[in-house]
Amino acid sequence: MTISDLFRSDLKVVNIGLTSFKEALDSVGVPAVQVDWKPPVDVDPALLRAVRSHRAQIEAANQKAMAKILAAQPALVGLEKALDVIPGMKPNLILHSGPPITWDRMCGPMRGGIMAALMYEGRAKTPAEAEKLAASGEIEYAPCHEHSAVGPMAGIVSASMPVFLVKNEENGNTAYCTMNEGLGKVLRYGAYGEDVIKRLKWMEQVLYPALKKAVAKLGRVDLKNIIAQALHMGDEVHNRNRAATSLLYRILAPAIVTTSADPKTTADVLEFINKNDHFFLNLSMPASKAGLDAGRNVPGSSVVVVMARNGTDFGVQLAGTGDAWFTGPADVPDALYFPGYTKADANPDIGDSSITETNGLGGFAIAASPAIVQFVGGTADDALNYTRQMYEITAAENSVYQVPALNFRGTPTGIDVVKVVEKNILPFIDTGVAHKEPGVGQVGAGVLNAPLEPFKKAFEGFARTL
Amino acid sequence: MTISDLFRSDLKVVNIGLTSFKEALDSVGVPAVQVDWKPPVDVDPALLRAVRSHRAQIEAANQKAMAKILAAQPALVGLEKALDVIPGMKPNLILHSGPPITWDRMCGPMRGGIMAALMYEGRAKTPAEAEKLAASGEIEYAPCHEHSAVGPMAGIVSASMPVFLVKNEENGNTAYCTMNEGLGKVLRYGAYGEDVIKRLKWMEQVLYPALKKAVAKLGRVDLKNIIAQALHMGDEVHNRNRAATSLLYRILAPAIVTTSADPKTTADVLEFINKNDHFFLNLSMPASKAGLDAGRNVPGSSVVVVMARNGTDFGVQLAGTGDAWFTGPADVPDALYFPGYTKADANPDIGDSSITETNGLGGFAIAASPAIVQFVGGTADDALNYTRQMYEITAAENSVYQVPALNFRGTPTGIDVVKVVEKNILPFIDTGVAHKEPGVGQVGAGVLNAPLEPFKKAFEGFARTL
Repeated sequence: MTISDLFRSDLKVVNIGLTSFKEALDSVGVPAVQVDWKPPVDVDPALLRAVRSHRAQIEAANQKAMAKILAAQPALVGLEKALDVIPGMKPNLILHSGPPITWDRMCGPMRGGIMAALMYEGRAKTPAEAEKLAASGEIEYAPCHEHSAVGPMAGIVSASMPVFLVKNEENGNTAYCTMNEGLGKVLRYGAYGEDVIKRLKWMEQVLYPALKKAVAKLGRVDLKNIIAQALHMGDEVHNRNRAATSLLYRILAPAIVTTSADPKTTADVLEFINKNDHFFLNLSMPASKAGLDAGRNVPGSSVVVVMARNGTDFGVQLAGTGDAWFTGPADVPDALYFPGYTKADANPDIGDSSITETNGLGGFAIAASPAIVQFVGGTADDALNYTRQMYEITAAENSVYQVPALNFRGTPTGIDVVKVVEKNILPFIDTGVAHKEPGVGQVGAGVLNAPLEPFKKAFEGFARTL
Repeated sequence: MTISDLFRSDLKVVNIGLTSFKEALDSVGVPAVQVDWKPPVDVDPALLRAVRSHRAQIEAANQKAMAKILAAQPALVGLEKALDVIPGMKPNLILHSGPPITWDRMCGPMRGGIMAALMYEGRAKTPAEAEKLAASGEIEYAPCHEHSAVGPMAGIVSASMPVFLVKNEENGNTAYCTMNEGLGKVLRYGAYGEDVIKRLKWMEQVLYPALKKAVAKLGRVDLKNIIAQALHMGDEVHNRNRAATSLLYRILAPAIVTTSADPKTTADVLEFINKNDHFFLNLSMPASKAGLDAGRNVPGSSVVVVMARNGTDFGVQLAGTGDAWFTGPADVPDALYFPGYTKADANPDIGDSSITETNGLGGFAIAASPAIVQFVGGTADDALNYTRQMYEITAAENSVYQVPALNFRGTPTGIDVVKVVEKNILPFIDTGVAHKEPGVGQVGAGVLNAPLEPFKKAFEGFARTL
């Protein structure tokens, strides 16, 4: 058949790629089917060939990394001050979310969070003093992730902040995270008002000792078990933590009652947790971190062990590329904005909480939590489809973390950067949204796909190790 | 075309009714499609005509009943001793689940529960004494449902038992239910050992005063809100109450702490609730009862306001037939049996807990709780299909009680006995399973369809009122 024969016959078209071709055919009544396919990400062909020629070796390395990640047994084993436990912590060091960044490139909410921390630490009396000190060079900054820690949103950890100790009992490593402050005007969203500092002081002086005593009495709290149950109860433990917070509360409450100084303290502590359905987020994050850290430093593995944003850059680390960060600009999420705010007020995506997605939770498990998709106008079927798509780019399924609506299938776990590039499908992330100016706080919550650039760079960096 | 022409041509068959016809055609390679249809229930044709000629009137009456049922605002407003609050309660009266029944026809677990109650009340010292007294004629028996009450399994309520007061704040009526004892060897499953009585005494002397003070401090606990949330968290509030119990616990705990006599009592009370994920069942039941009672006595309505089993008979009451009971034998459920037990040990279906299904919850909302279907070898899709089928026989949807996996569709609510008969689809019920002998306790949990006979009789009784 020649080309001219082809166009003389009745056309039946299968279109791959740009949908505009199909739309043109639709408009003139030619039957056409659209295939849901995108070309691979445009990367150096030599690097793509290098990866493809090492396919079996990469697969074996990925299975090794995934075995360690899936075997993780995260448990809450205690609370301490950051200075006393976080490796490398010191009085003039402030940890932040995402990849490394200098003060001059930091976004508004991260600056606001640092200012709040400096006032909380008593190193500054006013926001102006705090801002001056922050930029003076006296204060050092480093990513939480480089200190076995994670932090939601701005992710600020300063020396005297209490932190949860979450131990991966299978591997022996520990991850750290501050306690969740609640919603609205809070440090992690960049707010630094008097009420913010006052709440942090109450958390240090009342909440922390109460929880520390309760956890000491309990010995350990099995976080893997709570997360597994919460996924059966409508949580994805990133943007929805209502069930996990409830289950944790039930475990903690009797221990708080029996170890507490007095009934007033007990009641205040219980009410603080009861009023904050996100209290568990600061445990689902280090639980994920403690597992993923066990999968680090597996040569030849293309599995993502960190996705994190500092509100300016989105950074990725791989099991097979050591401590290298691969970064690109962070995007502004689609969101349900609080009354009075719009996307124009929103800071680009920020926080280490995407460690949950990196661990097969959050957006990867959103089929277990369709209420989140409803926020942004989606349906329960959309939620199923988001999770289904993530199986395309992951290396394994977590048999303990299951999605009831997918007939209890394990969550898609372990993002394989090779699949991301070859299929051109980007990780789906649930997120909170901070105001772009310091001092304001949260303005919404929503969803987005990770940006392409860090994954493209990670692929290239990985390919060069082969 | 004549019959002989028909059989000379190639057959393409649409089969309605018995599947064996299709199977015969399949075996000889004739294309055949099976339509999922059953003939209507075989009822007196005159009565069927009577109902069909009053279709519009029945529909209007049903909408009136449903408006009252759906508008219900059930709230926990207090706890009191049964004798002090339940209408018509007296010292020698024992309430039981299901339709009316005499001692000689009662099943093993109901007899066991009554024996436990008589020992708990101090009217008998040994099981033998209790059995003798129970059969002596000194003790009167009546259904919970005839005293604005409901009880799970044997449903036993005696004079000094504490009960929850659940008020329908929209309509003003109140429903009553005892507190849940936990699983295993408990009164409601027919056990009467020393540990059973000891637990009931602790509940009366420690748990009851603590909860009474806490609820008094709170004023009210909104049960409609808790149930609505729990359906988003994997509960159907009949066989699964983990989320609802957790949410209730979070509300009660701070109030218990601040009103409690001492920290030991507080801790014991919290641990008791924490160890029993079914604690909320004894609130979802009166919450359903309080709503459905508002829909009673609507002439011309074919809506079911009670489905209840006494372990011998399954009974139905309708909005349009006053206090009449329509009964038939109760079936033995399909179940997951505890180790060491089989279906041969099981008592026929028992308890007032099917008031949840009558209110669009439990088996009617099982799509929200697929883990229950997994118990008995089913899949998440089976759970969706059970709920979808219940829309066929219900008069309305509850916009507050929603099923996430059906894109937040309201639960199918208000069983219409006309639809049950015309479509020959029977209500789907989740249930616990009691050992058939008194003194043993729970042996499993499962699902079943309601028996046909009570619905057939209810239809006929209803038709005669027209």
